[in-house]
Amino acid sequence: MTQPTPPQIALTMGDPAGVGPEICLDILADAELGEVCQPIIYGDLEVLTHCAKTTRRPAPDPTRILSLTSGLSFNPGTPSATTGQASFQYLETAITHALSGQVQAVTTAPISKDAWHAANINYPGHTEVFTSLTNSSPTCMAFFSQTINASLVTVHLPLREVPLTLTTERIKDVIALTRQALQQQLHREPHLTILGLNPHASENGLFGDEESRLIQPAIEHQRSLGANLSDPLPPDTAFLPSHRKQTDGYIAMYHDQALIPVKTLAFDTAVNTTLGLPFPRTSVDHGTALDIAWQKKANPRSLREAILLAAKLTEFAPPL
Amino acid sequence: MTQPTPPQIALTMGDPAGVGPEICLDILADAELGEVCQPIIYGDLEVLTHCAKTTRRPAPDPTRILSLTSGLSFNPGTPSATTGQASFQYLETAITHALSGQVQAVTTAPISKDAWHAANINYPGHTEVFTSLTNSSPTCMAFFSQTINASLVTVHLPLREVPLTLTTERIKDVIALTRQALQQQLHREPHLTILGLNPHASENGLFGDEESRLIQPAIEHQRSLGANLSDPLPPDTAFLPSHRKQTDGYIAMYHDQALIPVKTLAFDTAVNTTLGLPFPRTSVDHGTALDIAWQKKANPRSLREAILLAAKLTEFAPPL
Repeated sequence: MTQPTPPQIALTMGDPAGVGPEICLDILADAELGEVCQPIIYGDLEVLTHCAKTTRRPAPDPTRILSLTSGLSFNPGTPSATTGQASFQYLETAITHALSGQVQAVTTAPISKDAWHAANINYPGHTEVFTSLTNSSPTCMAFFSQTINASLVTVHLPLREVPLTLTTERIKDVIALTRQALQQQLHREPHLTILGLNPHASENGLFGDEESRLIQPAIEHQRSLGANLSDPLPPDTAFLPSHRKQTDGYIAMYHDQALIPVKTLAFDTAVNTTLGLPFPRTSVDHGTALDIAWQKKANPRSLREAILLAAKLTEFAPPL
Repeated sequence: MTQPTPPQIALTMGDPAGVGPEICLDILADAELGEVCQPIIYGDLEVLTHCAKTTRRPAPDPTRILSLTSGLSFNPGTPSATTGQASFQYLETAITHALSGQVQAVTTAPISKDAWHAANINYPGHTEVFTSLTNSSPTCMAFFSQTINASLVTVHLPLREVPLTLTTERIKDVIALTRQALQQQLHREPHLTILGLNPHASENGLFGDEESRLIQPAIEHQRSLGANLSDPLPPDTAFLPSHRKQTDGYIAMYHDQALIPVKTLAFDTAVNTTLGLPFPRTSVDHGTALDIAWQKKANPRSLREAILLAAKLTEFAPPL
């Protein structure tokens, strides 16, 4: 048997004015990480070199940087149209290279949405750019960790719109995407816990009807395709340790139904990933942290976890 | 200084056909508990004696039982109009005795709502009976534990009705009730974390407006009365350990926003209590568990925690 080549991961540097550059420098200096994958920074060599000086880090190895901008004028801590345009360019190039197979996965450092708006880039966030540029449908946001895995049926919506937006089709899709991702990782059929929308999962219709009207039909359909699924369960007791032991992943109907338990149980190790893209994509779980940017205070742990998950997912990714 | 008398706690036996009788027997046999309070079972001596024989427990001490029914005909595991009527009678008497000061608090074992319906008792649950028979308003449901305290602005509603039901008045009331309860326990001003309704607490109106329209005005009003309150916080990060350390209690806008973290973090020790009544009231956190009733399988731990909290709350209760 030959040793498999470590996968190449495009790591986008994020907004130059945020904490992205310095945590990318930490990743380059991380020898242990280098044993499982080869992160390549999609960013700006001048910015990284300057940031290394400012934060008293060793100069980065230029062979591990794909420098896509130069001569950027900006102040650390202050994103602008310039930095927004740059961070978008890193992302676009990384997606193009992942689609063509030059890299096997993409991990993203934080961007500034305000800077994107200033640069007239009107995507609400990273995920929508991935979905659009790879022409993928359906996709879903999921969080993977050692402790808990959860996928989201709806994401960034006012709570009042959640019950109006849920559809049986969408629930089916999120079940199918999660089932496939976990099958690849576990090499067996995963057991998925489907959460109800309402308190006590409506207690047989006493507090709402979405469980019987929308969720149960999606469950029946996916079961007919071989999925191993719970009925819609009361969301509060579904995360008890005894139940967590029996489940490989949760299907959550709204943002905080997934994110409250994920952050409570795995607050610094859960990795945000997008299911349904043609390549693995993971993301750091924090923002640009402008108040501490370029001050050697940022912690690279979440970015490191995101890169490790991306590397792990490439093992199971279908050939392009 | 004289030794204070241990408080007398009315412990309602709950539905005779459920697990209530056997866990009440365990409480009577618990010598350690007897050092901090004196639980008196509001129930049926015949039922308890019969249950003790069936489950091979010692016969109960009749002086610690207020026997309110006799000659009940029922099968263990099968609630009926008879058992529903009986469990309601235990509750009514306990409330009357608490109002007159014969006991200092009430703790409730599980009742069967189906049995109440069969007996034409149309309260949705214990809490509504307490509120109505004590003529209390406002009240709120709260969960107290060593790890986390949380109060609920809305409780048993379909999720779609939550945004339509929230009002600034109700949020003000729940803040005031929680503040007072924690002031009494902590002997200082508590710090309360107010949760937003929407993901990311709406991110300045991007995903909903309830934070600025309904929640913030309640916060401003209560701050003007001296309360120490957060702004509406993103619900997913508000339960991180670093934030939990800084907060004495959470104000949750809906059932699962409180109950997911409470059950995840304190699954077998959180006690359900009702704030705003003229005496302390706590409840076991499970149901009648008919499938294991009268089989010596029921665990009295949650009931024990509920009694301990009731005893603790009597220390701070205002004189009647």
